[in-house]
Amino acid sequence: MERDLVAWIKSHVPSHPAVEVGIGDDAAILKGSGHRLIVTTDMLMDGVDFRLHECSPERAGRKALAVNLSDLAAMAATPIAAFVSLALPKQGGEQLAHGLYRGMFPIAQRYGLAIAGGDTNSWDGPLVINVTVLGERINPFGWLRSDARPDDIILVTGEFGGSILGRHLDFEPRVKEAQILRDHYQVHAATDVSDGLSLDLSNIIQASNCGAIVEQSCIPISSAARQCAASSVRSPLDHALSDGEDFELILTMPPQEAQRLLTEQPLGVAVTRIGRVIREPGLWWMDNSGQRLPLLPTGYQHTFYS
Amino acid sequence: MERDLVAWIKSHVPSHPAVEVGIGDDAAILKGSGHRLIVTTDMLMDGVDFRLHECSPERAGRKALAVNLSDLAAMAATPIAAFVSLALPKQGGEQLAHGLYRGMFPIAQRYGLAIAGGDTNSWDGPLVINVTVLGERINPFGWLRSDARPDDIILVTGEFGGSILGRHLDFEPRVKEAQILRDHYQVHAATDVSDGLSLDLSNIIQASNCGAIVEQSCIPISSAARQCAASSVRSPLDHALSDGEDFELILTMPPQEAQRLLTEQPLGVAVTRIGRVIREPGLWWMDNSGQRLPLLPTGYQHTFYS
Repeated sequence: MERDLVAWIKSHVPSHPAVEVGIGDDAAILKGSGHRLIVTTDMLMDGVDFRLHECSPERAGRKALAVNLSDLAAMAATPIAAFVSLALPKQGGEQLAHGLYRGMFPIAQRYGLAIAGGDTNSWDGPLVINVTVLGERINPFGWLRSDARPDDIILVTGEFGGSILGRHLDFEPRVKEAQILRDHYQVHAATDVSDGLSLDLSNIIQASNCGAIVEQSCIPISSAARQCAASSVRSPLDHALSDGEDFELILTMPPQEAQRLLTEQPLGVAVTRIGRVIREPGLWWMDNSGQRLPLLPTGYQHTFYS
Repeated sequence: MERDLVAWIKSHVPSHPAVEVGIGDDAAILKGSGHRLIVTTDMLMDGVDFRLHECSPERAGRKALAVNLSDLAAMAATPIAAFVSLALPKQGGEQLAHGLYRGMFPIAQRYGLAIAGGDTNSWDGPLVINVTVLGERINPFGWLRSDARPDDIILVTGEFGGSILGRHLDFEPRVKEAQILRDHYQVHAATDVSDGLSLDLSNIIQASNCGAIVEQSCIPISSAARQCAASSVRSPLDHALSDGEDFELILTMPPQEAQRLLTEQPLGVAVTRIGRVIREPGLWWMDNSGQRLPLLPTGYQHTFYS
C-alpha cells in the first residue's frame, strides 16, 4: 500500500528545473554550480520509531537527527544544517524538548552541522519529530541508488538484524565512512539500510534496472539478530535480511575496486561482500549448495486500511 | 513558555559558517555566491491547525504548503522546492494522503515550486503534516525582521482578524506581492502575520532594537473580525490585533517610499499605513484622542505545563 501511495505521489507532484532527483528517493538533489545540495527529511513518531516510556528523550532526539545523517551518508554528502519540527505533548512538553535537543547536540557537533531552524508546537497528541537535513556534495563524487551496473560486487558495512534491541536508537550514521569511500574508492550505487537489507537492496537493483544474486552464507548476522531469533519463529538470517533500521551502507562497486576495499578494510567497521549485480532483473539467492532461488524482499512498510 | 523554550534552543544549538540567520526566526538563510538559500519549515497538526472533521484534506494540505510560502514571501524569496512529511492515521490514511496532495498541487504549480521529497508514514495518532520549503533570493534584495529603522513607516497588506472563519485555510500567500515590492520599492524589514498582528509587529521591533507606535484608527479590520466580535467578549480591533493566521505582510519602509507605495497601490490587495518605527524600545498605541499607551502584544502561543 505504501509503495502504491509513494508511486501515486511521485507521478503527480510538480517538478522544478533545479531539482534533479526528487520524491520517492530518500533525498532530493538540487543543482548548483560545481556542487549539489542534498535534502533529506524524516518524521518519527512516539510509539512507532521510538517509545518514550522505554527510552530517554535524548535517545529519541538523537535518532531523529541520525536517520537523516544516514541518508546523507548514502549519497556521500557532507551535512550542513538541520531543521527540527516538534509536536510536543502539552504535559511536560518543555522538559521533553530540552531532552530531545540535548540528544541532538553531540551528534550535530560530531558531524559539523548547524541546527538552523525549526517549528516548536504543543498539542494533545503524542510526540512527533520531523527533521530535515541539508547537505552538500562535490560533483561528480556522490552516489545514487540508480547507478549499479552488471558485474558490480555488492558490499555492506557492519552487521544486520535485531536492531530493535537498541541499535535502531544508538547507531552511528556512516557519514565519515562514506567520506573515506568517496575520497579513495570508486563506488557505483549506494543506499543505507532503513527498511531492511533485502528491501533496500531491491530498491537499488530496481532503480538501476538490473538484478542481484546474494550469497546466503555471506550475510553478516549480528549477535542481536541471533538473540532475537532465540525468542522468535524466524531464523537469525531472516532477522538480518528484514528487520531494518541497521543504518549500515549497501554499496555496489566494480570488482577490482571491491577487492581493494575488502583487502584494505579502511573504515574501522568491517566491509563484507554479500553478492553481485547481474543484468537479469530480480533479486536472487544463492544457498549453501549453490542453488539459485528467488529472494523475496521483506522489511518494514507502513500499512493503511480503508 | 514557548518563548523561553525557543530562546533555550537558540542559545544551545550548534552553528555552521554557511548558516547566516538561524533558529528562532521563521526561516534560515544559507549563504551562497550572489544568492541566498532560504529554508522554512512548519508542522501542522489535526485539531490544532485544522480540523479534519470540519475541513477537507485538500484544504489542510493546501494550508501546510501555503504557511511556508507565506514565510518565504516575508523574505521576498522565490520558492524552489517543498518536502512533505506525513504521519497518517492507518484508517483511511492512503485516501487522506491523496486529498492532502491534491490540495498542494495547484498552489505548488501557481508559485512554480517542486514537491521534491518527503516521508510518508502511518500510525495510530491523528494526522501530522510537516512541510519544509526551500527558496532563493537574489542579494541584496531580500528582507529581514531585524532591519526596521527609526522613522520607518509601518504598512500592512490586507485586513486582519477572524481568520478562524475560513481565511486561515484559504489565504493566498503574498509571494507575488512580495516580488513586486522587492522589485520596485525599498523595504527595510518585513514579516508575515501568523501569530497575531501585534505579536508579529513586536517581533520586528525587538529584532531591530527599536520601538513602534501604532495608530488605533488605522488598523484594517476585516469583516470576519467584526463577525467574530459579534459573538465574543472581544472587540473587532482586538480580534484584528491578536487572532493571527492572517498571513498578510507587515513592512517597514522609509517615509518617502511608503508614501509612493500608498499612492501607487500596485498590489491588487490594499496596502495600509498603521504606524511608525521609533528609536525608543517598546510597542505603543496611539488612541483616537492622540494619547500614547503601552500596547501589549497578544497572539497565539503554544503552551506547556509540567
